[in-house]
Amino acid sequence: APDGAKLYVEKTCVACHGPKGDKPLLPSYPRIAGQNAAYAEQQMKDIKSGARNNGQAVAMQGVMHLVDDEEIKALAVYLESLR
Amino acid sequence: APDGAKLYVEKTCVACHGPKGDKPLLPSYPRIAGQNAAYAEQQMKDIKSGARNNGQAVAMQGVMHLVDDEEIKALAVYLESLR
Repeated sequence: APDGAKLYVEKTCVACHGPKGDKPLLPSYPRIAGQNAAYAEQQMKDIKSGARNNGQAVAMQGVMHLVDDEEIKALAVYLESLR
Repeated sequence: APDGAKLYVEKTCVACHGPKGDKPLLPSYPRIAGQNAAYAEQQMKDIKSGARNNGQAVAMQGVMHLVDDEEIKALAVYLESLR
């Protein structure tokens, strides 16, 4: 399985969400550290597909092409581990 | 200003997101404890307006009529305090 911690850095998540997912670049971005994996996975997929399109989703949509479904799942599991 | 902690219980947030916002009823619901207030406020408004309509947003849309903008802000500030 893909390494979530490695993907978090390589796929640029770290740039906006912070090294540990708990200090985003802007207050209008979410804290994602410790988020439920099932929720985080669905949100990433919905932002990628455009089903979720509100607020700052457009910023995420610029990078979501970098990850496939398997990598999204690995990232979600990694985020949940950050508690 | 409205009391966020009181609203959290009275407006039924507690029913799905748990007493402290960190143990939602379903894994597909988000953990909201400690979320950035600016982010949480915007999401609540977007779910209420329908701008955010993905995933489990429909569950939230059933209750968002219970809160106005001032109460949403108080709830968001309360959530951020839960760290």
